[in-house]
Amino acid sequence: MATFVQAQDNLVQYVKPIIGTARMGHTFPGATVPFGSVQLSPETDTLPHDVNGKYVKEVYEYCAGYQYDDKTIVGFAHTHFNGVGHSDLGDFLVMPTVGTLKLNPGEKTKPRSGFRSSFSHATEVSEADYYKVHLDDYNVDAELTSTSRVGVHRYTFPQSSDAHIILDMMYNIYDYQGKDVWTYMRVLDDSTIVGYRQTNGWARNRTVYFAMKFSKPFKNYGYKNFSKNEPYGGFWRRFNINHNFPEMSGHDLRAYFDFDTKNKESIVVKMAISPVSYDGALENMKAEAPGWDFDAIKKDGQAAWNKELHKIEIKAANDSEKVNFYTAMYHSFINPTEYMDRDGQYKGNDQAIHKANDFTNYTTFSLWDTYRAQHPFLDLIQTHRANDMMKSMLAHYDQSSIKMLPVWSHYANDNWCMTGYHAVTVLSDAVVKGINTFDAEEALAACITTSNNPYYDNIPAYKKYGYIPDENSGTSVSTTLEYAFDDWSIAQMAKKLGKDSIYQTYMKRAMNYKNVYDPSIGFMRPKSAAGVFRAKFDPLETDGEGFIEGNSWNFSFYVPQDPMALIQMMGGDKKFVAHLDSLFTMELPDKYFEHTEDISKDGLIGNYVHGNEPSHHVPYLYDYTSQPWKGQARIRMILKSQYHNGSAGLGGNDDTGQMSAWYIFSSLGFYPIAPGSDVYAIGSPAIDNAVLHLENGKIFEIKVKNQSDQNVYVKSVKLNGKLLSKYFIHHGDITNGGVLEFEMSDKPKK
Amino acid sequence: MATFVQAQDNLVQYVKPIIGTARMGHTFPGATVPFGSVQLSPETDTLPHDVNGKYVKEVYEYCAGYQYDDKTIVGFAHTHFNGVGHSDLGDFLVMPTVGTLKLNPGEKTKPRSGFRSSFSHATEVSEADYYKVHLDDYNVDAELTSTSRVGVHRYTFPQSSDAHIILDMMYNIYDYQGKDVWTYMRVLDDSTIVGYRQTNGWARNRTVYFAMKFSKPFKNYGYKNFSKNEPYGGFWRRFNINHNFPEMSGHDLRAYFDFDTKNKESIVVKMAISPVSYDGALENMKAEAPGWDFDAIKKDGQAAWNKELHKIEIKAANDSEKVNFYTAMYHSFINPTEYMDRDGQYKGNDQAIHKANDFTNYTTFSLWDTYRAQHPFLDLIQTHRANDMMKSMLAHYDQSSIKMLPVWSHYANDNWCMTGYHAVTVLSDAVVKGINTFDAEEALAACITTSNNPYYDNIPAYKKYGYIPDENSGTSVSTTLEYAFDDWSIAQMAKKLGKDSIYQTYMKRAMNYKNVYDPSIGFMRPKSAAGVFRAKFDPLETDGEGFIEGNSWNFSFYVPQDPMALIQMMGGDKKFVAHLDSLFTMELPDKYFEHTEDISKDGLIGNYVHGNEPSHHVPYLYDYTSQPWKGQARIRMILKSQYHNGSAGLGGNDDTGQMSAWYIFSSLGFYPIAPGSDVYAIGSPAIDNAVLHLENGKIFEIKVKNQSDQNVYVKSVKLNGKLLSKYFIHHGDITNGGVLEFEMSDKPKK
Repeated sequence: MATFVQAQDNLVQYVKPIIGTARMGHTFPGATVPFGSVQLSPETDTLPHDVNGKYVKEVYEYCAGYQYDDKTIVGFAHTHFNGVGHSDLGDFLVMPTVGTLKLNPGEKTKPRSGFRSSFSHATEVSEADYYKVHLDDYNVDAELTSTSRVGVHRYTFPQSSDAHIILDMMYNIYDYQGKDVWTYMRVLDDSTIVGYRQTNGWARNRTVYFAMKFSKPFKNYGYKNFSKNEPYGGFWRRFNINHNFPEMSGHDLRAYFDFDTKNKESIVVKMAISPVSYDGALENMKAEAPGWDFDAIKKDGQAAWNKELHKIEIKAANDSEKVNFYTAMYHSFINPTEYMDRDGQYKGNDQAIHKANDFTNYTTFSLWDTYRAQHPFLDLIQTHRANDMMKSMLAHYDQSSIKMLPVWSHYANDNWCMTGYHAVTVLSDAVVKGINTFDAEEALAACITTSNNPYYDNIPAYKKYGYIPDENSGTSVSTTLEYAFDDWSIAQMAKKLGKDSIYQTYMKRAMNYKNVYDPSIGFMRPKSAAGVFRAKFDPLETDGEGFIEGNSWNFSFYVPQDPMALIQMMGGDKKFVAHLDSLFTMELPDKYFEHTEDISKDGLIGNYVHGNEPSHHVPYLYDYTSQPWKGQARIRMILKSQYHNGSAGLGGNDDTGQMSAWYIFSSLGFYPIAPGSDVYAIGSPAIDNAVLHLENGKIFEIKVKNQSDQNVYVKSVKLNGKLLSKYFIHHGDITNGGVLEFEMSDKPKK
Repeated sequence: MATFVQAQDNLVQYVKPIIGTARMGHTFPGATVPFGSVQLSPETDTLPHDVNGKYVKEVYEYCAGYQYDDKTIVGFAHTHFNGVGHSDLGDFLVMPTVGTLKLNPGEKTKPRSGFRSSFSHATEVSEADYYKVHLDDYNVDAELTSTSRVGVHRYTFPQSSDAHIILDMMYNIYDYQGKDVWTYMRVLDDSTIVGYRQTNGWARNRTVYFAMKFSKPFKNYGYKNFSKNEPYGGFWRRFNINHNFPEMSGHDLRAYFDFDTKNKESIVVKMAISPVSYDGALENMKAEAPGWDFDAIKKDGQAAWNKELHKIEIKAANDSEKVNFYTAMYHSFINPTEYMDRDGQYKGNDQAIHKANDFTNYTTFSLWDTYRAQHPFLDLIQTHRANDMMKSMLAHYDQSSIKMLPVWSHYANDNWCMTGYHAVTVLSDAVVKGINTFDAEEALAACITTSNNPYYDNIPAYKKYGYIPDENSGTSVSTTLEYAFDDWSIAQMAKKLGKDSIYQTYMKRAMNYKNVYDPSIGFMRPKSAAGVFRAKFDPLETDGEGFIEGNSWNFSFYVPQDPMALIQMMGGDKKFVAHLDSLFTMELPDKYFEHTEDISKDGLIGNYVHGNEPSHHVPYLYDYTSQPWKGQARIRMILKSQYHNGSAGLGGNDDTGQMSAWYIFSSLGFYPIAPGSDVYAIGSPAIDNAVLHLENGKIFEIKVKNQSDQNVYVKSVKLNGKLLSKYFIHHGDITNGGVLEFEMSDKPKK
């Protein structure tokens, strides 16, 4: 029975972090607080470690360190991305063991071949900021919770005089060529360790500092250095630096701490991280988790989640819908993450220490994904944090060696993954919507500089030709389309700020999508500098045809800034609708997607790819045609088929919340089809009612009559009692507070 | 003709940094200011680089990067030790070239095989804080000078449209197994670069930050990464990050900067270093070398040297003596070096950033060498700096993971080289002499903790047995002897502070030397835990017989704390003198020293090893016998034979000033035979007069009558007009000011 969420309800009950941990979701099941720096979660690892004791991974599947189908856990690491398709992190793997000490992880499929343990999902509990599992090989209960900067472990041991807690400093996520650069550890007393870990991975220069405390003193400790290159200075040999020696550093280290344990004795481990120093980590721990009350920390963490989740209170047909909805909110509130010490210090993109004086600094900006719906969603419902994220982007810009806003940035680095300069869209969107607390003029300047960057991905050629020539780039068409959209968003910001000349310049650039459209075939198509379209061309192929993670079929719809012009360009309403229909209905032979990691069968609907981002706006294009009802049906079909409550409940990578944000908007009945405008396109609400508590104190309610799995068609929509004549609302309509009333029907409104 | 140094004399004229650059001295010929952080000096490198373009070195000979007999220079690096026998550093090699860009160093013996250049000593000028050479292959004049934290280069080019300045971030001194950990560079503008370099060498965790400025903008720049492991993130490939891209990092980098040059055009390069951050380096440069006037910087640097050298004004028989003397002073004023930013921040031994609030932090403590004469010399003539050095040692102690005073420390690390805990002697010596400005009680506590360290080199066994058992250590005897001496110095400090119980405890430990003396052979000898002397034993052998860098013959004299007891133990005055005589006169077969790096034929006099430290006090032991005149003759013979004006003018490693300090004391006619007491033993002055300007404003004058190469025997010594009855003076005799008058003779005073 459909029930309203009540203010006193604990919404944490509807969060199932396990959703997306199987197959393509790349989510993690462990503990984190909203936007927390720490994401403490189990690793299940994969292939055998190599001869040097290093991990070798099937990296793509293990972007979040955990795959639901695995039978062994190798430990619990403190940093994870939510739902990415390339990865990094996995800092400070901790593992409790009992019996003969093993310092090799062992093989995934061979229990007892190393320190990993078998486990079963029957003993597993995965909640917001709480994870529990029984480690069968050691008869140890492992529980995890966290504050923003501190991961907290509680290990309940059997009786043993040979219990260990391993600290693996060389574990990495997505480690296919050796990421370890350096590690340093220092034992401060019988229960405190500090140090740092430095990697060269997706983030080229990454150092994470730590401070670790045990609730019980260890009786002995030691290290093993797995590097072949031992340091100079044979005089170290006069000490046994591998056993009970309080300082160690090296390329590849694992440490262990020995304990005597009584039956059912719990040892709590706190691991604080810092981007600045181990003293910073110690201070972070002191501020956030000074004591040893695991349950209290868990309670605080879950209370924090409950508070954030209550920002949208829904009425839904059943708990399964609530689980989908609140888990989507949970997933959209993980990244970006706080990236600074309690005192505001953080490492900048220039590898220098900075202090965030008037904002919280965030990292992990997967902007090719998140500018679409994740940032717009945060703008709406986490307006203060969203602004701090944008201030973090502007700080990144200030610190950038090439004066670029972030592309895909994490931990003081840009990894430059994917294409476009979509940070400009995030900033423009906020300015156009009038929610920005950052300096808009300054942001506009940063957008203009970014979009004219002489280094970055063919911008000079794009400016010269009005498109990126085929010979310049393997993704010449999609990048041209993305630049054109980003340019349009800059134009919108300039317009809002009354900068007409900039507006004109960027509106001209926004039209560049036309330069890669081949009317002879009705598709976007690679074009040479000489202006000649590529001869041999397959618009269904994703590989090598000028598009990034998508084919021309999907990307040819990528003109969110000007759907009416797109429709005209493609032959007018009737032809366009038929074309759009066939995207969803055609049969796509396997060969077209099986070689692209980010596009799997899970995420496909016909030739429409929901499991990846480029077409996320496409179902809403129907709003610009004569047949919006087709979009309504398709949106509901996507919500049903691409999201469910199981571990394989996401049809594609969550991509730091973009998939989830799409779910939330679409469930609520509207979607930001073109960030950079204040317009939302109406879809088909899948909840029965929703109350949005906005940070300005206003309430926006979505009332839905007669919604059901059959009643997916919008019969009418009223805003504050007034019938909408078009399927669009504005951001201000929401932030002013009010009521959006849907009446649904099982019949399309033709 | 013997002349007094006058106040207006520029004593820099007598400094020849080239002394010791050939063979065993391991000094460097480049530019540095007194105790400066930067030592900017040419590298001549050695063996062919390996297939990966990395340097492979005959490391021992190249401890200072330069060997006089080499014919090519590979560049100019910014950090060097003075005269060490194991090494590190060599940061930021800079090399100007003209013509086709080469980024491999090439082979030492194959000019034009890489970026190295031929040179000739005919064009070389090596002065205090100034070095000049003509790089023949490029027709470039290279000049170097420095401030404490800034190396300043002036390169005068021929006319060229193809001139380059190479910045080699992967050059290392003493690199036999790959020290590079990580490097980072950032081009801030057309003439400024910042970054850092991280190595795992003798210092296990070492990072040096830099800021580099060119007086002229470069027209292009780029990098080559010599590492096989290229970073993750193929998206970097969309930019040409190797050319004109302002940010680069990697394991093994070399960078280049291109210029057009007019004939005789000079480009000045400033390279500032910092232990903390590149911002710190920029600030250091701003404070110390804001402009481009190379000559003014050189002038200031040489004026600083002149000021320090004037602290002792001598009258000598000829300029050659002055050169020896003032070059010895120059060499003793290089290490330890300042190790902090201008604002007092530095990286501590705990790898955290600290601020030196009330002292200048120093690094490079080669204490096994320097506690003997170098620190006593600095105590006497650089009292303020000497105290800051001791405060730096105490800060190191505070930061040490095992609560140890430094053993051999540099750049935030202890490399634990050599044996003993001689920092306690340095501290005790200062307290006993009453010159300490640090807290003596605190220092005593640090000494006690250090001498009871449970981790360090067999201290627990030493305490248990009263000696280190043979089976515990390869240097059981020499380490026992050194510990016993260090313990005696602690006892002296305790006595001075009125801590009788501590005094008693440590006086007992000071007697431990007796436990390794075998009266049946008259030598110190390895003894097992069971109390049995090693059966097969050769007191002439240095290798594997229980001694470090020395044989039992030399080390058996190592009881500076109790020479009278030693003499009795060895059979009384007559027997002892005969034994001592034979040390200097016996024939030592080659086989006994040719396998020990630090003991070469250059430094041998009979079986007495002057080229290494353990016997530096031995000639002064004659003062405790009936025949002091023998010591007087031997000291003069050592001064003559072991020190001269040529490039091979040092008979052994200068060992961060110890060899030079021995020269200075001995030339002045006295020597601190047992630091930890305030007593100096009288030798035979080799200068004609000397005026010591002490920091307390007092003047101590040494007047020497009838001194000559023949008149090496002391006929009489008067202190302030009063005849000395024994061949000893006290520290207070000097620091109170006064006159020490020698009358010399060609006849021994028997």
